[in-house]
Amino acid sequence: MRVGFIGVGTMGAPMARRLKAAGFDTRFYARRPDVIDALQAAGLVHVDRIETLASEVDVVFLCLPDDTVVEEVCGGRVLPFLRSGGVVIDHSTVSPYTSRSLEARAKERGIAYLDAPVSGGPMGAEAGTLAIMVGGDREAFERCRPLFEATGRHIFYLGSSGAGNIAKLVNQLIIGVTQGALVEGFVLGARMGLDPAELYRVLSVSTGDSAMLHRSIAQAVLRRDFSPRFTVDLLHKDLRLVNDLGRRERVRLLAGSLAEQLYREAAAAGLGSEDIAALIKPLEQLSGVVVQGNEVPR
Amino acid sequence: MRVGFIGVGTMGAPMARRLKAAGFDTRFYARRPDVIDALQAAGLVHVDRIETLASEVDVVFLCLPDDTVVEEVCGGRVLPFLRSGGVVIDHSTVSPYTSRSLEARAKERGIAYLDAPVSGGPMGAEAGTLAIMVGGDREAFERCRPLFEATGRHIFYLGSSGAGNIAKLVNQLIIGVTQGALVEGFVLGARMGLDPAELYRVLSVSTGDSAMLHRSIAQAVLRRDFSPRFTVDLLHKDLRLVNDLGRRERVRLLAGSLAEQLYREAAAAGLGSEDIAALIKPLEQLSGVVVQGNEVPR
Repeated sequence: MRVGFIGVGTMGAPMARRLKAAGFDTRFYARRPDVIDALQAAGLVHVDRIETLASEVDVVFLCLPDDTVVEEVCGGRVLPFLRSGGVVIDHSTVSPYTSRSLEARAKERGIAYLDAPVSGGPMGAEAGTLAIMVGGDREAFERCRPLFEATGRHIFYLGSSGAGNIAKLVNQLIIGVTQGALVEGFVLGARMGLDPAELYRVLSVSTGDSAMLHRSIAQAVLRRDFSPRFTVDLLHKDLRLVNDLGRRERVRLLAGSLAEQLYREAAAAGLGSEDIAALIKPLEQLSGVVVQGNEVPR
Repeated sequence: MRVGFIGVGTMGAPMARRLKAAGFDTRFYARRPDVIDALQAAGLVHVDRIETLASEVDVVFLCLPDDTVVEEVCGGRVLPFLRSGGVVIDHSTVSPYTSRSLEARAKERGIAYLDAPVSGGPMGAEAGTLAIMVGGDREAFERCRPLFEATGRHIFYLGSSGAGNIAKLVNQLIIGVTQGALVEGFVLGARMGLDPAELYRVLSVSTGDSAMLHRSIAQAVLRRDFSPRFTVDLLHKDLRLVNDLGRRERVRLLAGSLAEQLYREAAAAGLGSEDIAALIKPLEQLSGVVVQGNEVPR
């Protein structure tokens, strides 16, 4: 099976490498010379036009930043060129409404479109341990299972088109809000004299434990390492999407709305391209404390 | 060493039993005949007045619902009767300002007062696996370590008086907010057609994983079992305390304020004595969905 990867960024590049390593003839589209060189060195074939790539493969992978880019790339430059019977696997996190609209257009051309957002970050992508949340045609999903197994450890088929993105956006709602609570808790604790590293150890064995505690507090805040694994701008975008779902479905998302506003504030403070853990910085500044401590994550 | 336990409720009773099982001469105060019978059957000695109990032991344990009760019991009926050189170990979750005030009054009488709130719930208390967060005199803490080891697995000395309650209230802030996010996420997911049990499985291997996901979603919401392990009223009280800290210390707690209001809403809806997972019920009602599914927690 020939596969083509579009969107070889922080997440996409390691996923494309894993597909190649699993034995699939893997082609990719990219423009940056350093990205092209690195993937070519790993044995992947560079193709310099999206339309050409789409016409050469059985399955097109997308891993793109937002709905607008996915619409433009998939709707305009992939679907018209991919063969009938082909599959698009979209690892981007977008609105389920975007997924459903693209699936309908794909179907008209005999193409299956699976929304398949992931969780686990660049480290999960490198290690092939991602969680993958898939929506769309079940038969196409089963055919593509070996591809998902090359990049993910936990693979979920969740239902018809859009179901993958609904689950992913629920995850993003939860991490956005949890991060907001962690920020407030650590700033308050530091302000009142607790050692942040010790507070982290307490919470990690208490009911306040969470994946975000380890990811954002231990690995980022305590070390003051805000290099982006997942940026403030991207989570802000996801929170806008989930609140849009709430509006359309008439589900009141008070915590979700607050989280969106907190990330908007962080973006407005110039932190948009930093890691989501940088959400702590505006509150630290307001409160006159810095949450710091050397902590090796478990 | 003779110890006396005051407040043998859902948390206190199993903790008192573990002290007895660890070999300490354990006395207790209680009024309900069924509670008295059960603890006497386990070999603990019943004492029918708090003042008498305090005068007979070296260490008094408190595990009481709120600041007012702790003030009244400890300030009015324990400290005047406990011998000089004695220790009060207060497992109640109260304001650190209350802890500091009681410690000062205890000190005047030559008594050490340790604030030592816990995390882990009734199951952790039964199993002796609680996290215990201790503030107060370090030397008294070290002397009491064998007592803490009878009831807890993770024992933290966090600093001077009040430090235990600061850490505990940070934990409560985080669980209150996280629970709010989980409620919104699961109601939205169910409303959009996802299977809640499958959504739980997805989140449990994604960045949205948390202790609260397992505790409140898998063990309570999916099984529709809202029998109280920790009540809405008690978490509402803790959230009021942590927001009070934010006010006094001038730390902006937007997520904390929202969580307090969500629990107030749940209490006003008549859910005060149900488990904190019942926070989902008002939003389910507003949204016209019920989040349900049989799920065995890990």
